[in-house]
Amino acid sequence: MPMENEPPAPRPRRRTPAGAAVLREEVTDAIRTAVFEELAAVGYGRLSIERVARRAGVGKAAVYRRWPSKLPIVLDVVSALAVQGLPTPDTGALRTDVRALLELTSRVMRHPMVAQIIPDLMAEAARNEEIAQAVQAAIRDSQRTIAEAVIRNAVARGELPADADIDLAVDLASGPLYWRLVLGRSPLPKGYLDSLTTAITTALGAKES
Amino acid sequence: MPMENEPPAPRPRRRTPAGAAVLREEVTDAIRTAVFEELAAVGYGRLSIERVARRAGVGKAAVYRRWPSKLPIVLDVVSALAVQGLPTPDTGALRTDVRALLELTSRVMRHPMVAQIIPDLMAEAARNEEIAQAVQAAIRDSQRTIAEAVIRNAVARGELPADADIDLAVDLASGPLYWRLVLGRSPLPKGYLDSLTTAITTALGAKES
Repeated sequence: MPMENEPPAPRPRRRTPAGAAVLREEVTDAIRTAVFEELAAVGYGRLSIERVARRAGVGKAAVYRRWPSKLPIVLDVVSALAVQGLPTPDTGALRTDVRALLELTSRVMRHPMVAQIIPDLMAEAARNEEIAQAVQAAIRDSQRTIAEAVIRNAVARGELPADADIDLAVDLASGPLYWRLVLGRSPLPKGYLDSLTTAITTALGAKES
Repeated sequence: MPMENEPPAPRPRRRTPAGAAVLREEVTDAIRTAVFEELAAVGYGRLSIERVARRAGVGKAAVYRRWPSKLPIVLDVVSALAVQGLPTPDTGALRTDVRALLELTSRVMRHPMVAQIIPDLMAEAARNEEIAQAVQAAIRDSQRTIAEAVIRNAVARGELPADADIDLAVDLASGPLYWRLVLGRSPLPKGYLDSLTTAITTALGAKES
């Protein structure tokens, strides 16, 4: 059970001036992990500081010292996801780049915790503009950055016209996989990612190889 | 404010034997509408019989007389959506059928109440197998029935090979629009539905016209 070093301080040597409490990073991490697990277990609506504190093995005060309420904690955890992001595939050809991106995306969407949390935050985003913006930044923006890089490389290699439809490409790279894996909780049939790759490269204006 | 005709019955002529209370359909409808509105306003997690009753203008007992708890009410409301469903386009050609289906789907997904409720139920479905099955039936199954009819007609006209990939077609018809309209809350760029139509017909194995 992680413990705060606020008074009574276990290590007097590291005592800080009153009012400038040191927030131990391992406690912060334990709380973040607990938020993630609580989001998966009960969802945003039923998540409470009390449950988070209990799961993290800390007192409620340890949570409130870091975040004033549940919304900022959740925004913090979601934003941390955006920073991690996905690697941008750079295989030297559009088709294999798209295939690699779909492989990565489908792996993320199959992760049980992700599959649990994303729909819940998406639902909350429809009601809460702050969550909406954090989710957009965490999911859509990072994804768009990757798609732009893949397309830019393909345009530079002469594989795509300069006016390739990036909006549609982004939606095609995530929408069908989200619909099937996360919402439908159905497996990917054999050859699915190959066919989806073809649909995407065709929509972008690439000649079929 | 709708009222029950359980005792004291306002219309003695329609009195029924004790224990066989008549449930007035207009009260049932008012409760269903209230459930729909509450789902949009606060989501499944925070929906309560008390809130539903207040919004419907009835007593809690009127709700409990019909459904034992909130899960069965929500399942009932969701199942009612499946029955309505979408019309199956039958324009005489694959491309225009797909285009019409995308037009209809995007109109449904843009409806503010639908855009609010679907993500929430999808989130709840990840935690609750009964809701998952009701949502699957309401959304995926009816959608698959439409896609199968469109594809069957196209195969009969010789526009598609008999082994057209219906799984991918279904996901392509809904996934990108859901990702963009419901989750991204972004508008459809000009030409988007046309490009998506091409991506779908190509993925199905149709020659580009």
